Amino acid sequence: MKKKSQVFIGVIGAGKCSKKIYDLAFEVGAGIAKKGAVLVCGGLGGVMEGAAKGAKENGGLTLGLLPGDEKIDANPYIDIPIPTGIGEARNLLVIRTSDAVVALPGRYGTLSELAFCLKMDKPVVGISTWQVAEKMKQTKDPQKAVKLVFQALKKK
Amino acid sequence: MKKKSQVFIGVIGAGKCSKKIYDLAFEVGAGIAKKGAVLVCGGLGGVMEGAAKGAKENGGLTLGLLPGDEKIDANPYIDIPIPTGIGEARNLLVIRTSDAVVALPGRYGTLSELAFCLKMDKPVVGISTWQVAEKMKQTKDPQKAVKLVFQALKKK
Amino acid sequence: MKKKSQVFIGVIGAGKCSKKIYDLAFEVGAGIAKKGAVLVCGGLGGVMEGAAKGAKENGGLTLGLLPGDEKIDANPYIDIPIPTGIGEARNLLVIRTSDAVVALPGRYGTLSELAFCLKMDKPVVGISTWQVAEKMKQTKDPQKAVKLVFQALKKK
Amino acid sequence: MKKKSQVFIGVIGAGKCSKKIYDLAFEVGAGIAKKGAVLVCGGLGGVMEGAAKGAKENGGLTLGLLPGDEKIDANPYIDIPIPTGIGEARNLLVIRTSDAVVALPGRYGTLSELAFCLKMDKPVVGISTWQVAEKMKQTKDPQKAVKLVFQALKKK
Repeated sequence: MKKKSQVFIGVIGAGKCSKKIYDLAFEVGAGIAKKGAVLVCGGLGGVMEGAAKGAKENGGLTLGLLPGDEKIDANPYIDIPIPTGIGEARNLLVIRTSDAVVALPGRYGTLSELAFCLKMDKPVVGISTWQVAEKMKQTKDPQKAVKLVFQALKKK
Repeated sequence: MKKKSQVFIGVIGAGKCSKKIYDLAFEVGAGIAKKGAVLVCGGLGGVMEGAAKGAKENGGLTLGLLPGDEKIDANPYIDIPIPTGIGEARNLLVIRTSDAVVALPGRYGTLSELAFCLKMDKPVVGISTWQVAEKMKQTKDPQKAVKLVFQALKKK
Repeated sequence: MKKKSQVFIGVIGAGKCSKKIYDLAFEVGAGIAKKGAVLVCGGLGGVMEGAAKGAKENGGLTLGLLPGDEKIDANPYIDIPIPTGIGEARNLLVIRTSDAVVALPGRYGTLSELAFCLKMDKPVVGISTWQVAEKMKQTKDPQKAVKLVFQALKKK
Repeated sequence: MKKKSQVFIGVIGAGKCSKKIYDLAFEVGAGIAKKGAVLVCGGLGGVMEGAAKGAKENGGLTLGLLPGDEKIDANPYIDIPIPTGIGEARNLLVIRTSDAVVALPGRYGTLSELAFCLKMDKPVVGISTWQVAEKMKQTKDPQKAVKLVFQALKKK
């Protein structure tokens, strides 16, 4: 009776970003939804919102692990808002809940999340972001990033 | 474009329980799913498993906020396992994520969750569990508990 | 070279309280310091401040586990402020860091802490607070509470 | 009556390390204690133990924010063990509790802590570790690292 277990892909990056990066995040979210995976993110604005919007508009399910204790903080494209109330420590939950991660440009919060990806040995593909390990693949193309992250997952 | 926002109902109680209490939890989970709400729980055994099984077998979506850092710890009826890695502190996330809560018998972990329900002013209905506030309603009937918890939600 | 390991006593109770309860907390903090133990609390006002003041004015060391992420939130009698940034989840850290606990009157936050005391099997003495277990001792006298909590610790 | 507020210096780095790095950490801990500051660390082995030993043997006070829920996990040089029970998320508490940080070599856990230092705008001096920001100073000399970190603190 148990169905094939669901794949969860995290998208991380800046909470405030340019239209260009928002659009890249949208494309990544769209690609994740088309593959039938659940989108995991921090639930707020910028990259998180772009990715969630892309997933929602392509029939995907979106999960937002919020730092605060109110669901109302979630961007409007989050189906499942989790108000963790544990502040920045929720970054670890984003990574733990994801089977693999796509990282867009971001500052030190994104760097901390990348560090946790590598510590927890989760596959991660970057789109023009911090290069923190030799094995970490980077691309400029959001569709290629989605393709690479699903490939990495298969190899695990 | 934004759909009507989803209702989340938490079910709390002992991680190990008798068949009788497991069956009560099953009925509560079933009732929640039939009402179209998402079931939120701690993702492990006992009451959490009974409720998740009841929800799954009635077409519901189930969310498990796990204390450990591995998804594999989730019971087989959890669709969305969140390995928080923050131990017992995840009890607070179960309550924060829930719009209202049904509490079954449990020990001090359940008592702490009830205390958080009241602190966060979330509607809670008990099934033969700790009576920690005058306003807290109790019943022995799982279907009545589901009915009462949705009624309490409407009044908010 | 290693010195005899330090005893840590937690004091829990309302963040806002009457002068009478503040004075009771002061007496408890004073008693803990006179016994040479470290005072552990949530670092904010009310019972936490009364207890920290009592300990400081009697030569004790005081530890405050704060919910927010700024040390400035600590009351002026805290020597070691720990800005956990994890909100109410810091209640669990107060209990885990304490070898035994004195509980003064408080609302649901205090109840949740009492529940964690019992879950973690930490000795706890109440001063006119929630009676959550038969084995939990209560008194109205702060000096007796301190005496009882150190006795309970010895028996462990 | 309130005494001059205490300075807290964090030391971060690998939980397992060579004798050479352990000795560097010892020197850093010794320097921090000689300056009268409290040493903050993750409470476990490797760099954390070296630093705590250096501080203890020079009359300092040592604080260990442990990932697990048992004090017994702390290394023998920790005066104040805080069993957070929140796993790796305790890394954030190490940084928040520190007014400034010395970073020794470490892997991705250390990188995540460095990212949090920069995010929270805490002064940080590295000893042959990750260079994650231009403004971050590095040295090979533990005594110079201590000197630089106290200088950075004064400028704030």
